[in-house]
Amino acid sequence: MTDHAPPTSADPVALARALIECPSVTPEEGGALAFLEGLLAPKGFDVDRPVFSQKGTPDVENLFAAIGKGERHLVFAGHTDVVPPGTLTSWRHPPFSGAIENGVLYGRGAVDMKGGIAAFLAAVLDFVAERGADFGGRISLLITGDEEGPSINGTAKLLKWADERGERFSAAIVGEPTNPSALGDQIKIGRRGSLSGEVSIRGHQGHVAYPHLADNPVRALGPLLAALMDPPLDAGTENFQPSNLEVTSVETDTKVFNVIPARADVRFNVRFNDLWTPETLKAEIAARVERARAMPSLRREGLAPVDLRLTYQPVVSDVFITHSPDLVEGLANAVEAVTGRRPELGTGGGTSDARFIKDYCPVVEFGLVGDTMHQIDERVPLADLVTLGRIYRRFLDDYFS
Amino acid sequence: MTDHAPPTSADPVALARALIECPSVTPEEGGALAFLEGLLAPKGFDVDRPVFSQKGTPDVENLFAAIGKGERHLVFAGHTDVVPPGTLTSWRHPPFSGAIENGVLYGRGAVDMKGGIAAFLAAVLDFVAERGADFGGRISLLITGDEEGPSINGTAKLLKWADERGERFSAAIVGEPTNPSALGDQIKIGRRGSLSGEVSIRGHQGHVAYPHLADNPVRALGPLLAALMDPPLDAGTENFQPSNLEVTSVETDTKVFNVIPARADVRFNVRFNDLWTPETLKAEIAARVERARAMPSLRREGLAPVDLRLTYQPVVSDVFITHSPDLVEGLANAVEAVTGRRPELGTGGGTSDARFIKDYCPVVEFGLVGDTMHQIDERVPLADLVTLGRIYRRFLDDYFS
Repeated sequence: MTDHAPPTSADPVALARALIECPSVTPEEGGALAFLEGLLAPKGFDVDRPVFSQKGTPDVENLFAAIGKGERHLVFAGHTDVVPPGTLTSWRHPPFSGAIENGVLYGRGAVDMKGGIAAFLAAVLDFVAERGADFGGRISLLITGDEEGPSINGTAKLLKWADERGERFSAAIVGEPTNPSALGDQIKIGRRGSLSGEVSIRGHQGHVAYPHLADNPVRALGPLLAALMDPPLDAGTENFQPSNLEVTSVETDTKVFNVIPARADVRFNVRFNDLWTPETLKAEIAARVERARAMPSLRREGLAPVDLRLTYQPVVSDVFITHSPDLVEGLANAVEAVTGRRPELGTGGGTSDARFIKDYCPVVEFGLVGDTMHQIDERVPLADLVTLGRIYRRFLDDYFS
Repeated sequence: MTDHAPPTSADPVALARALIECPSVTPEEGGALAFLEGLLAPKGFDVDRPVFSQKGTPDVENLFAAIGKGERHLVFAGHTDVVPPGTLTSWRHPPFSGAIENGVLYGRGAVDMKGGIAAFLAAVLDFVAERGADFGGRISLLITGDEEGPSINGTAKLLKWADERGERFSAAIVGEPTNPSALGDQIKIGRRGSLSGEVSIRGHQGHVAYPHLADNPVRALGPLLAALMDPPLDAGTENFQPSNLEVTSVETDTKVFNVIPARADVRFNVRFNDLWTPETLKAEIAARVERARAMPSLRREGLAPVDLRLTYQPVVSDVFITHSPDLVEGLANAVEAVTGRRPELGTGGGTSDARFIKDYCPVVEFGLVGDTMHQIDERVPLADLVTLGRIYRRFLDDYFS
């Protein structure tokens, strides 16, 4: 761990630079949580750093810091881990240097989401400095080091850990980058669900010169793909994009030119909206597989009906949407007050740790502009860091008024 | 290498046992060629054992033995290498023991093709013993140790080596197992050609939650497979089965559930008959790929036409058929004279070293019954070894009459 002297004021730019200088590629802590602890503990926060483990996954460090007492308990959630920087020499500035050029801060995690953490940290520190610890409510920071990784030893376990200690949250803001192009574009108030599965076509291996002695599973591949992909699952709903089934992988068990394979596996993922539950979706997919199985083109004289086996991955994320006006309208008002723009309320894109938090309290996501996330030269305008800090601060003032 | 005392008479059963006792799994010589040299050299054969090498492949030992002088030069071709025995304990008798039970000889290579070599060896030794070295022609034995392997340091190079030394063959018999169920079923007088290739579908990788930012190559897979596989290439010809295109492998470049792949590769092999040349076939496949590319379902708004790249494997076997009546009718007559059955003249199945020999002289294949080749408990009835030896001997008598 690196020893970082905390910045002298609640300056989101200085905080973001200090965090970027920690090489916290998942699952490495990289000094980032130590930095937060060193910053928060002297200001009166109760800080815990639980480490979670699970066989087959790396141990992961996490941080939970809280201050204040009261019914209203707002939690800011985020992650200090970052995706790998890729080719170091491709970066305009070294990815863990926190270089500033022309009013823009460069570095891995600048927007996803060390910059977001820096902004809510600055807002919370300022708020507590002004109002003191007895402001009539409670504020927590729930920070994991396992968001970009398997997400097993991170937020899910940290929430359970906090719950078991009696922490009850009334609202949560995840500081993930949610704005497509400008700060204030969008608050995310829900996410589509996610279901992954696999259809395995079983045939019979053989020499390519004797196809009549084999049963090539590839003959079923085209019809199966067509049945899975068509027609579209739905046309979308008021709050959600259309559901989408995407085939992500196709693979035969042999990869050579002279052997007919015994097996072809098709993997897919569905992002589904509030027209579906995992159960109704599984029934629809099973019906599509049955439709493929029944296609006349798949019947071959002397062969049994094609053998299709459908299985699902164990982890399913259900669709959710947050209706809490306190949180959704309150945050939209804060965004509008600071930026002059009314954010849209979106539900698109991938999953985030909000999928875990939604089981404990209303949750929304709002952070920086995401256009450079996970890319070479990830970067954030200094002005965005300051503006985002002001939005969070405005929300804090309103929420605890 | 093992030291084998040659059997005292030209007995195909003793010769087959001696060869089976040599553990000559490709590329190991296993004592098999040393045994042949020890047998043939004392009988007046000129014996050479050239070793061929190529970077990236194992060195392989080969044997060329010849006797006699004359325009008519018959070559018996074969291989002493065998495929691995698999699980030793699954065998009824150890695979390199040459055990005999109830009139059946067990062992790896019993039919493919140490038994075939033993039969033509017995025939040639008997013939030379009776007629002497001055029988008015020349007989060669062209034996490789690289037929079951990459076939790079074997028959192809041995033929070139012999050609450079001035050997000119008038006819060749390959002793591969050609009979589906009973000795005398079938002489192979040609083989379909073989062409292997790959179509790579290039798309654009992306996160599964943002399919509009990616271009999933899987969308082109079904139409491409349909265009490649349908309609059938032809309905067969007088001497050949229908040509067949078989897709042997499909593979995306990523195998996970949350990433849209950038690439999907389809590998195929075509076994083609005498309606095609490699060139006309390549033109037909290119036209089918173009047909897939032009399908309306593959056009997507905002995306370039689907990127399909067709390439071929460097090794192409051309189709061939042998019309030489001397060889084809002569051997069929010998089969009929010994077994009472007129063999059919076939061209089915996989490739063999005949594909190389056809460039030097007319070639046919005739050997044992192939039903146990490459299997656990590969075996041959002793009676078949004796009968095959008599057929080859009869052919020798006719060919050099």
